[in-house]
Amino acid sequence: MAEAETPNRSPEIRKDKIHNRWVLFSPARSRRPSDFKAKSNPQPNNQTECPFCAGHEHECAPEIFRVPAGSTNDWKIRVIQNLYPAVSRELDFQNPVSLVGDVAVSGFGFHDVVIESPVHSVNLSDLSPAQVGEVLLACKKRIEQLRSCDSIKYVQVFKNHGASAGASMSHSHSQMIALPIVPPTVSARLDSMMEYYKQTGKCSLCDIQPNELLIAESAHFISLVPFAATFAFEIWIIPRDHSSHFNEIDSEKAVDLGGLLKLMLLKMSLQLNNPPFNLLIHTSPFQDDPSNAPSTHWFLQIAPHLSGVGGFEIATGCYINPVFPEDAAKILRDVRISNNNI
Amino acid sequence: MAEAETPNRSPEIRKDKIHNRWVLFSPARSRRPSDFKAKSNPQPNNQTECPFCAGHEHECAPEIFRVPAGSTNDWKIRVIQNLYPAVSRELDFQNPVSLVGDVAVSGFGFHDVVIESPVHSVNLSDLSPAQVGEVLLACKKRIEQLRSCDSIKYVQVFKNHGASAGASMSHSHSQMIALPIVPPTVSARLDSMMEYYKQTGKCSLCDIQPNELLIAESAHFISLVPFAATFAFEIWIIPRDHSSHFNEIDSEKAVDLGGLLKLMLLKMSLQLNNPPFNLLIHTSPFQDDPSNAPSTHWFLQIAPHLSGVGGFEIATGCYINPVFPEDAAKILRDVRISNNNI
Repeated sequence: MAEAETPNRSPEIRKDKIHNRWVLFSPARSRRPSDFKAKSNPQPNNQTECPFCAGHEHECAPEIFRVPAGSTNDWKIRVIQNLYPAVSRELDFQNPVSLVGDVAVSGFGFHDVVIESPVHSVNLSDLSPAQVGEVLLACKKRIEQLRSCDSIKYVQVFKNHGASAGASMSHSHSQMIALPIVPPTVSARLDSMMEYYKQTGKCSLCDIQPNELLIAESAHFISLVPFAATFAFEIWIIPRDHSSHFNEIDSEKAVDLGGLLKLMLLKMSLQLNNPPFNLLIHTSPFQDDPSNAPSTHWFLQIAPHLSGVGGFEIATGCYINPVFPEDAAKILRDVRISNNNI
Repeated sequence: MAEAETPNRSPEIRKDKIHNRWVLFSPARSRRPSDFKAKSNPQPNNQTECPFCAGHEHECAPEIFRVPAGSTNDWKIRVIQNLYPAVSRELDFQNPVSLVGDVAVSGFGFHDVVIESPVHSVNLSDLSPAQVGEVLLACKKRIEQLRSCDSIKYVQVFKNHGASAGASMSHSHSQMIALPIVPPTVSARLDSMMEYYKQTGKCSLCDIQPNELLIAESAHFISLVPFAATFAFEIWIIPRDHSSHFNEIDSEKAVDLGGLLKLMLLKMSLQLNNPPFNLLIHTSPFQDDPSNAPSTHWFLQIAPHLSGVGGFEIATGCYINPVFPEDAAKILRDVRISNNNI
């Protein structure tokens, strides 16, 4: 476990230039950054009869595809419909007639699940870099299918690990929701990145100088703690080359990303005691204005849940982070992972 | 307990015109709206030695004022500094020199606590309407003190009830954080309300027609479930008369609001099994542009936490609400509270 001697720090308010929002950094008086751990991470269920396990495929909503294609009992990944979808593929798409007053449209969209392994006890970080890469390529394939639906504007890929991070099933899986609208946080991010581009002539993520915020690097990606991290020990993984859409990733880069993602998940889990977390793919809308291409850059976010979200965060959109990013990055850099695990 | 026969509903995507964001309404297949209950609401601590209790004043950070002024052991409300503040009143205020690149300013601000009763076991909803009114007037008084500090731009008043809603102390209290910035959600709300005003010539909250969303009314306030509620069974309490700043409230209106707020907390607690919740006062920035006055209108929000926030919400800013506002309003309207409790 990494220990770090960290300087005494005063509270700071930092601007997250990617999302155009402020984060309050408030060093906890009673704890060193290296003392932060998840207290417990209750899993959502401990079903002996898990529908995501191999052999229970008939208990699930319809399958969309599996990997390898044409496999039978020996599938590695299944992409299926969500049995309790937040949006419905059976409704007709409606364009809102007006945006003034009380506006409601049908809840049209797609809500799918990526089962990342046939085995209940296997976590994403237990897979090999190539296998993690295959999960990422399955997401890419499904995103490209959804892109063919003209009324879908954005696909959010997300993973909830642990009940307090929103998971309702403990078997390792990710979800994706395809929406007929561009969500507000995505719009705010695109606007903010465009503003940076207008002011500097550069993409805000290409322009990052990670320095003391760097955790690790691979051939095609870097991982770091962002300067104005919303969550304690939050990690971003950013492609070195400018790319607006996650689904532009190729097989070689997917395996490379798989290795770095696995390393980050192992470091986080070891340092923070297997915390609840979200893994998010931040990409660009499908029919994005081509003028946004130079300023938008996809990335992955890993958000550990070490403390809950309270009224202040809900009301203001300002988060309070007790761990300075420089300290979190040093601690995560110093966590040693045995090569046997990679 | 109220029961309601509710129609089968299809998923809907509704626009929250106050915050300019979208909410997904996805009726849960397995539960009727009247079946939603908090599973448990663990309290953050069960201290026999609670520093907020009468007799333990010396264990707290410095007092700012008490109610009644000049009281000794018989105080009713104490406003004190937070022992672990998110921002520091001891730092100098810094104006950010630039907003491009990595921007950080000192974490200057005020973080205070309103102890709502000297007795550990008394909840806000146990107080009389006049006593709840006194708590609201204590908030008003502290906000007006903070307004005299030129570099403070916004004060967020919030209450966290229950550990999973962010509370770290079980003794009934609210908090307020005074910031040298206008938080992003507040800016977005002001912009959205201004846009509505420009398009319609009306304040968006004055213009609300609650109809089937109404829960109850008092002389000066109405309570309702908002059309695009972020949380299941979310409640707003809105002044009938146009008013931009919460601290414009007078004593008569504070007692009237105290009664309606108490009624809403009792109804919510009875129907939802004492859920964790946040209570938020949404007001306007101090040095607000006078041109915003016709479009900004303060209100209270009560946000029960019946399910956690997952990766989708964090990534997109879109919330998924399983209970349609019309159903929640009917259920809350129908909850009977004995007059003995009011």
